Amino acid sequence: MKISHVEHIGIAVPNLAEAIKYYEEVLGLKCYKTEVVADQKVTTAFFKVGDTKIELLEATSEDSTIAKFIEKNGGKGGMHHMAFAVEDGVAEALAEAQEKGVQVIDKAPRNGADGLKIAFLHPKCTQAVLTELCEDPNK
Amino acid sequence: MKISHVEHIGIAVPNLAEAIKYYEEVLGLKCYKTEVVADQKVTTAFFKVGDTKIELLEATSEDSTIAKFIEKNGGKGGMHHMAFAVEDGVAEALAEAQEKGVQVIDKAPRNGADGLKIAFLHPKCTQAVLTELCEDPNK
Repeated sequence: MKISHVEHIGIAVPNLAEAIKYYEEVLGLKCYKTEVVADQKVTTAFFKVGDTKIELLEATSEDSTIAKFIEKNGGKGGMHHMAFAVEDGVAEALAEAQEKGVQVIDKAPRNGADGLKIAFLHPKCTQAVLTELCEDPNK
Repeated sequence: MKISHVEHIGIAVPNLAEAIKYYEEVLGLKCYKTEVVADQKVTTAFFKVGDTKIELLEATSEDSTIAKFIEKNGGKGGMHHMAFAVEDGVAEALAEAQEKGVQVIDKAPRNGADGLKIAFLHPKCTQAVLTELCEDPNK
C-alpha cells in the first residue's frame, strides 16, 4: 500500500468541550469543525497540525466503542487509533492487507468523519494499534 | 506555543523486529534508523510518513517505562505518546505550558532520540495523552 501521510490521530476524550479548551488554550491549535458521526455514536472535533489532523472523539451513547474504551481505561481518555492516508485508495489497500494475512474490521470502504472513505484493520494484526486507512474522494 | 506539525507518534512494541517487519511489509514504510536510547532504556526504530515519524519503542530492561506500559496493557503494545514540533523552542513552550497550569515531567529540555531536544508534559494535564514537545537543534 502507498501511504502518503498520517491522516489523523484519533483520541478518545470523556468531555469534548474540556478537551477542545485544552487543545486550543494550551497547545494553541484551532478546532475547525465538530461533527456527529451517528453510526459510530461519537461527536468528533478536528484540529489541523501540519499535514495531520487530531480527531477528538466523545461518545454519544454508553454502548459507543469510545465509551467502552474510556471505561476500560479507568474513566480516562487516551490515544484510540492511528489513521493513514493511502494514495492507492482504501479498497486496494484493504485487498493488499488481506492478501498479506491482515484481518480487517471493514471489508469495504465506508463513509467516515470529515468526508473521507475509510476502513479499519484489526488491531490483533497491526501490532495492537487500531489502524484506519483513509482516502479523500474529493482529491 | 507554536506547534508546526506532529513530530512523531511513539508506539510501544513487545518485539521490535516483528514490528518493523509489519510496518515495512504490510504498510510499505521504510525503517530509516534504529537507535538505543540508554537513559530511557529503549531501542527505537523510525519511519517517516509525510511530515511525521512513527517511533517504535522496545524496552531494553524490565524497569523501562515501556516495559511497564506493555505489562499494564496485558503484554500488548500500543500508542504510547504523541510528540509535537514547536517552532518557538521547547524551553519557551514548557514555560508557557507551566504558566497555563500544566504540570511537566521535564522542567528543562533534554536530549531525545533522533537528535532532538525534547520535554514531556504530564498526562494528567493533557487529557490523558502523554505529550512530548520537540525541537530540532539543527534546523
